[in-house]
Amino acid sequence: MIDQLRVGVIGASGYTGGELLRLLSLHPKVKICQVVASSKSEGLSVSSLLPNLSKIIDIQLTPLNVPTIAKEVDLVFLSLPHTQSLEPVAEFLSHEKLVIDLSADYRLQDPQVYEQWYQTTHPHPDVLKKAVYGLAELHRSAIRKSQLVAVPGCYPTVAILQLAPFIAQNLIDPSSIIIDAKSGVSGAGRSPAIGFHFPEAHEAVHAYKIGAHRHLPEIEQGLNHLISASAKKTFAPLSLMFSPHLIPINRGILSTAYAKLQSDSGPADIENVYHRFYQDEPFIRIFPQAELVNPRNLRGANFCDLSCTYDSRTGHIVSNGAIDNLVKGASGQAIQCMNLMVDFPETLGLTGPGLFP
Amino acid sequence: MIDQLRVGVIGASGYTGGELLRLLSLHPKVKICQVVASSKSEGLSVSSLLPNLSKIIDIQLTPLNVPTIAKEVDLVFLSLPHTQSLEPVAEFLSHEKLVIDLSADYRLQDPQVYEQWYQTTHPHPDVLKKAVYGLAELHRSAIRKSQLVAVPGCYPTVAILQLAPFIAQNLIDPSSIIIDAKSGVSGAGRSPAIGFHFPEAHEAVHAYKIGAHRHLPEIEQGLNHLISASAKKTFAPLSLMFSPHLIPINRGILSTAYAKLQSDSGPADIENVYHRFYQDEPFIRIFPQAELVNPRNLRGANFCDLSCTYDSRTGHIVSNGAIDNLVKGASGQAIQCMNLMVDFPETLGLTGPGLFP
Amino acid sequence: MIDQLRVGVIGASGYTGGELLRLLSLHPKVKICQVVASSKSEGLSVSSLLPNLSKIIDIQLTPLNVPTIAKEVDLVFLSLPHTQSLEPVAEFLSHEKLVIDLSADYRLQDPQVYEQWYQTTHPHPDVLKKAVYGLAELHRSAIRKSQLVAVPGCYPTVAILQLAPFIAQNLIDPSSIIIDAKSGVSGAGRSPAIGFHFPEAHEAVHAYKIGAHRHLPEIEQGLNHLISASAKKTFAPLSLMFSPHLIPINRGILSTAYAKLQSDSGPADIENVYHRFYQDEPFIRIFPQAELVNPRNLRGANFCDLSCTYDSRTGHIVSNGAIDNLVKGASGQAIQCMNLMVDFPETLGLTGPGLFP
Amino acid sequence: MIDQLRVGVIGASGYTGGELLRLLSLHPKVKICQVVASSKSEGLSVSSLLPNLSKIIDIQLTPLNVPTIAKEVDLVFLSLPHTQSLEPVAEFLSHEKLVIDLSADYRLQDPQVYEQWYQTTHPHPDVLKKAVYGLAELHRSAIRKSQLVAVPGCYPTVAILQLAPFIAQNLIDPSSIIIDAKSGVSGAGRSPAIGFHFPEAHEAVHAYKIGAHRHLPEIEQGLNHLISASAKKTFAPLSLMFSPHLIPINRGILSTAYAKLQSDSGPADIENVYHRFYQDEPFIRIFPQAELVNPRNLRGANFCDLSCTYDSRTGHIVSNGAIDNLVKGASGQAIQCMNLMVDFPETLGLTGPGLFP
Repeated sequence: MIDQLRVGVIGASGYTGGELLRLLSLHPKVKICQVVASSKSEGLSVSSLLPNLSKIIDIQLTPLNVPTIAKEVDLVFLSLPHTQSLEPVAEFLSHEKLVIDLSADYRLQDPQVYEQWYQTTHPHPDVLKKAVYGLAELHRSAIRKSQLVAVPGCYPTVAILQLAPFIAQNLIDPSSIIIDAKSGVSGAGRSPAIGFHFPEAHEAVHAYKIGAHRHLPEIEQGLNHLISASAKKTFAPLSLMFSPHLIPINRGILSTAYAKLQSDSGPADIENVYHRFYQDEPFIRIFPQAELVNPRNLRGANFCDLSCTYDSRTGHIVSNGAIDNLVKGASGQAIQCMNLMVDFPETLGLTGPGLFP
Repeated sequence: MIDQLRVGVIGASGYTGGELLRLLSLHPKVKICQVVASSKSEGLSVSSLLPNLSKIIDIQLTPLNVPTIAKEVDLVFLSLPHTQSLEPVAEFLSHEKLVIDLSADYRLQDPQVYEQWYQTTHPHPDVLKKAVYGLAELHRSAIRKSQLVAVPGCYPTVAILQLAPFIAQNLIDPSSIIIDAKSGVSGAGRSPAIGFHFPEAHEAVHAYKIGAHRHLPEIEQGLNHLISASAKKTFAPLSLMFSPHLIPINRGILSTAYAKLQSDSGPADIENVYHRFYQDEPFIRIFPQAELVNPRNLRGANFCDLSCTYDSRTGHIVSNGAIDNLVKGASGQAIQCMNLMVDFPETLGLTGPGLFP
Repeated sequence: MIDQLRVGVIGASGYTGGELLRLLSLHPKVKICQVVASSKSEGLSVSSLLPNLSKIIDIQLTPLNVPTIAKEVDLVFLSLPHTQSLEPVAEFLSHEKLVIDLSADYRLQDPQVYEQWYQTTHPHPDVLKKAVYGLAELHRSAIRKSQLVAVPGCYPTVAILQLAPFIAQNLIDPSSIIIDAKSGVSGAGRSPAIGFHFPEAHEAVHAYKIGAHRHLPEIEQGLNHLISASAKKTFAPLSLMFSPHLIPINRGILSTAYAKLQSDSGPADIENVYHRFYQDEPFIRIFPQAELVNPRNLRGANFCDLSCTYDSRTGHIVSNGAIDNLVKGASGQAIQCMNLMVDFPETLGLTGPGLFP
Repeated sequence: MIDQLRVGVIGASGYTGGELLRLLSLHPKVKICQVVASSKSEGLSVSSLLPNLSKIIDIQLTPLNVPTIAKEVDLVFLSLPHTQSLEPVAEFLSHEKLVIDLSADYRLQDPQVYEQWYQTTHPHPDVLKKAVYGLAELHRSAIRKSQLVAVPGCYPTVAILQLAPFIAQNLIDPSSIIIDAKSGVSGAGRSPAIGFHFPEAHEAVHAYKIGAHRHLPEIEQGLNHLISASAKKTFAPLSLMFSPHLIPINRGILSTAYAKLQSDSGPADIENVYHRFYQDEPFIRIFPQAELVNPRNLRGANFCDLSCTYDSRTGHIVSNGAIDNLVKGASGQAIQCMNLMVDFPETLGLTGPGLFP
C-alpha cells in the first residue's frame, strides 16, 4: 500500500469541492498538495472560502496550471461545472495522472447522448471510452483498473442503487418505473439565484425539470446496462419517468421509486432482495421500514440507506433510498473510487457516522 | 342573506381548530359564539392556546355541552380527532343545527370501509347517509342542500382535485395512478411526539404509511365516484398507490400524481384539461409550469394550485397540486362549505392571499 | 370618509412592495390603480413577480412615469432602495399627491446625519423638513396632518416602541442601553447573495454590522426626541449599542433590549410601564412572560408584541419586542399611516391575525 | 500511552449521549464496551435509538449496573439528566474508575449554590470537592490529575471562553457584563414537548429564563474564579445578566457578550486579546469579523470560534462566540478531558472539521 497519496483538488469553491477537502482531511493516507478554486481566489487560503476548514487545511489556492499541478500530485479530483472538465481531464491523463472527475463530462458513454443533453459536442470521445462509471457497488473491478473515473451524479447514485437489484434479477417491469426524488438545496450548487434565496426556498417545495433533468439519461444508462447484462435475448432500452423535487434541507436526497412487480415474481421474493444483493457492501444499509430511510441519518456519511415495501393492493414495489448528495452522491463516493484505484482498503477514511441530529 | 351567522367551534386546541378561528375572524358575516377546547382548558381564553389570536378573539373556552351550545349557535364546526366526532355530530343534528365535521368520521360512505380503516364500528350509519363530502368543486349542489358536511382530508382534497378532470373524462388509465405526496408537519397535528420533535423533523424527509394511510380509501372513494359517473358500463373500482412523505415545512402539501395516458388520448388534449374543467372555479389556480406549483405561494390561502406536464418519452402525465393543508385542506374548505350551506357568496371571507415569503 | 382611495405602489418586486400589495388587497376602501416594478418587468402581470397574488391582483406593471401615475392616484407608496426615493418623493409632492415612503431617504431629520450614514448629500433638505416619521404610536397627530410620511425601518420600529415608555418617563439610564436584535432573512431584501443563499443561511446565525448598522442613527433619533421632550433641562444625546443578528426564519424580528434602571425607579414601577403607556394602542400587545413574545405569533399581522422583565440581581430591565418586519416593520405600518392621513379608521384593513403555525 | 481505553457510556438515548458515541467511534484508542440507555431499551441495539450509528456501533444496550460495568471499563461517561448523576458518579469512583460527568451535578463547587438552583441537597459534598471543572483551556493541569471531571454546560463553555481573557486581564468592568445567547433546539434535549414541536419551534425565536437559567451560576463561578485569581485584593463577586434565546437550528450556540471597557484599557489592547490569550489552544479559532463567527461553520467540530469588536461610540466591547453545543459544549469537550486524564494527545480523535453546508 502506498504510504501517502498526493492529491490535488480542482474546483474547491463549490460544495462538492469543499466536501472533498473535508473528507480528504480525515483520510490517513492522503496529502492534499494542490487546491484550485476560481481564478479570482488565487493566493487566498482554503478557509477563506470554506470557513469550516479553518485550522484544518491551511494551504493557499493556486491557479489551474495542469503541468505544474501534475508535478505535485499522483491523483487529481476535478469538481467543476459540466463542460469545464472536458479539457483538463484529458490533459491530466496525458500527464499520466489518475483522474477522478465529479462533473457530468465523462459519465455518458455515448457521445451523442452527451451532445443531446448538454448541447456540446464531446471533444474527446477517445478519452470517454476509457472512463469508468464510478459506482463502486456495480463497477468495482473496472474502477480498480481505471485511470479515469467519472463519479456518478447524486440522483443517479441513489436511483441506480435502489433499482439495480430488481432490474438485474428481472423482478420488475422496466417500463413501469417512476422515480420521485426529493433533494436538498446544496444539490443546486453554491451560486446564489432567486430560487435558492433563503426566503424563497425555505418553507417551500416544488418539482422541476420533470422528465427533462440531465441525470435522466445517466439513470437510464445505468439501468439499461443491467438489463442488457441479465437479458438472454435482445431487449428494448427502458425509458423511465424521473421527477426531481427541491425541499428545504441542506443536504440529502430521498428517492422514492415505484415499479410493477413482474407477474411471476412473488412478494416472498421481495423481502430479501436488498439483503441478498448488497450483503457484503460496506456502504449500503438496509432497513425494514420506509420511515427509517431518511437523509437526516446520514449527513456527512458515505452510506446509501435502502428500504423496500410491497403493496399488495396495486402490485407495486416502493423503494426508498437516501444518501447525502455531497458524500455518497459526490465526494465520498469519489474517495471510495480513489481507494479502489490505488489499492487502499475501500472504506479507508470513509467510516465516519452521520451527524444526528 | 342572513345578516349574521352564529357559529361554534369544537376542538380549538389543535391546528385546524386554530385556523378555523383565524379564518372565521376574517369573515364579515360570522359571529364566533362558542369555542370548546379540551376539558382542562375550560375558562381559559382562546388566546392562551392560540397566541396569534390575542386581541383578535377574546372569548372564553367552554365545556363541550351540546344542548347549551346548540342554543347559542346556528352552525357548529367540529375539529376533533377521529372517532371523537361520531357522537357529537349526531347530537348536534338532533338539535337541528347545521354541522360541519372536519374529522374523518363521516367521510367514508360505506360504514364497513370506515370500520376496516379506523377499527371502529360506525355507530350511526343512518346519519352517515346524510353526510355530504365537502369538496365544493365536485359536490357544490349537494353541499348547498346538506345539513351535515364531512370536510375532506388534506391529502384527498388535493389528490382528488388534481385527478378528477382526467378521471371524469376517461383520459388516464385508472390502474396506473401513483400519488407521491409531500406534507408539512402541521398535518401531523399539535401533539408532541418524537417524530415531530424539532431536531428530528428538521433537515429530514421520509415516507410513511406507504399504501396504508387512512386517506387512501377516501381518495379511492372520490375517484371511483367519478369513474362510476362517467362509465357507460360497469367498472372495476380502482386501487391506487398512495405514498405520503413528511417534509420540514410548517404548512402545505405538494402532491405529485403520475398516470398513463389512455392510448386514445392525445397530448394535445392534455394542455387544457385543467382550464376547461375548472374554468369558473374561484379557488383553483392553474399554472403553465410545475415549478410554479409550490405550497410556499399559498400559506394561509384557500387556493388549490395545479399544473400538468405530459412526458412523451414514457406516456405519463405528471400532475402537481399544492394546497395549504390547514386552509383548502381543512378549515378554509370548511368555511367554503359553510358559505354554500347558508347561501353566502361562496368566497366570502376567503379571498385573502397567501403570505409571501 | 372617502369612499375609495386610489393608490399606486412603486417598487413591487421586493418583499415590502409585495407585502404592501397583499395588505392593500385586504383593505376595503383602497383601489390599487398603478403598480411599478423594475423597468424590465413593464407589461408583465403583478403575479408574475408575486405568485401568491395570482387571481388576487391582476393588473399590469407600468413604468415609473410620475406625471402619468399622479393623474391616476390620490396617494403613492414608494418601496425603493435607499437613495432611489429621493427624487420621486419630491416629484409626487409637487403633483400634490400624498406620499408614503418606505425607504430610509426621508427618515433622518438632519441631512448631515443622512449624508454621514448613506454617503449621499440629501438633495431636498426642504422636502425633508416636511417629512413626518411614521411611527403612529408616537407621532399620530403629526401623521394625520402630513403630506409626506417616512415609514420607520424595521429595527427602529420595534426598538423605539420597546424603549419609548422607559425613556419618556426617565426610568432607565440612557447611556446603558444595549439592543441585541435578531432578524429573519426577508429583512435583507429579495436580491440573491451568497450570505442569503439557502445552504449558507439555513442552520446559521451570526451578528453583523455591530454598532454600524444604518438603522442605528434612526433609533437614536427616535429616542433622543423622547429624552428631549421629557427633559427639564438640556441633555446629552444618547449613543446606544445596537447589534443586529441574522437568524434562519423568513419573517420577523425579536429585539432584546437591556438597560439599567435609574436608581430612583423601583421595580414596582416596571410591571405596568407598558400597560400604562400603550393602554389604548390597537397594535400593541403586552405579555406577562418573555417566552410569549415571538415573531412566530404575528406572521402577517400588524402587531408589536412586548414584554418586560426586571432582573433584581443586576438591576437591569430586559425588554423583548417582536414584530413582523414586513408588516408592522414596513408595509402594515405604512397602511396604518395611510389610514391616518386620509382619515380612515386607523385599523381599517389591518386587523387580520398572524398565521399560526 | 495506553493502547486501548475501555469506556462506558451511561445515558445513550439523548443527544449528548448519541454524540459521545459518534465521536468515540472516531477515536483511534477507545473501545466502547458498555452502553446504557433507559431501562426500557435494554437489549436493543444502539442503532435502534441512534439510526446514524447503524453499521458503526453494533453493541447491545445494557442495564445500569455499576459493579458489572465497572469490571468492563476503565473510564465511564455519564450523560444523564441533572440529579440522576449524583449517586452513580460516587459509585463509579468507589470502584476506582475514572468518571466524566456531563450533567450539572458536579459542576457547582458550592453545594449550597447547587441546592439553591437545583432544589436538591447535594448528597456527596465530599465527592464534589474532588470534581474538576472540565474546561480544558482554563483548567488543563487540574483535569490531567483528576479522577472526576464535570463537563461544563453548553452556555457556560462559550460564555467563559469568550470573557475569560478580558476578565483575567481586568480589561472590562465585571458589573457591566451582559450575555445574550442564541441556542439551537438540540440544547433542549430529546424529550418531545410542545415548545419544541416542529411547527411551534420552526420560524420562531424567543427568550426564556431571563436571569434565571441554571447555567447562570456556573458562568458566574467560572468568571469569579478568574477575577479572584487576578485580583490583588478582595473583590466583589460579579452578578451578570444572562439571557438565553431559542432559535430554529438543530445544533449550535452563538453567544453575544457585551461589556464596558475599563477606563484605562485602550482599544489598541482589544484587538489582540484573544490572539495572545489563546495562541496555543488547538480548539480556539479567532476571526477578524463578527460575521465569520457562526455555529454553521462548526457542526460536529470541537472548536470554539471567537471574534471581538470594539464600539468606540459607546465604549463597549462586543464578543461573539460560537460552538456546537453537542461537541465543544458537551461530548467533544468530554473527550478532550478524557484525553487529558489518560495522557492521550489532547486533540486525539477530535480533529474532524465541521460539516459545511
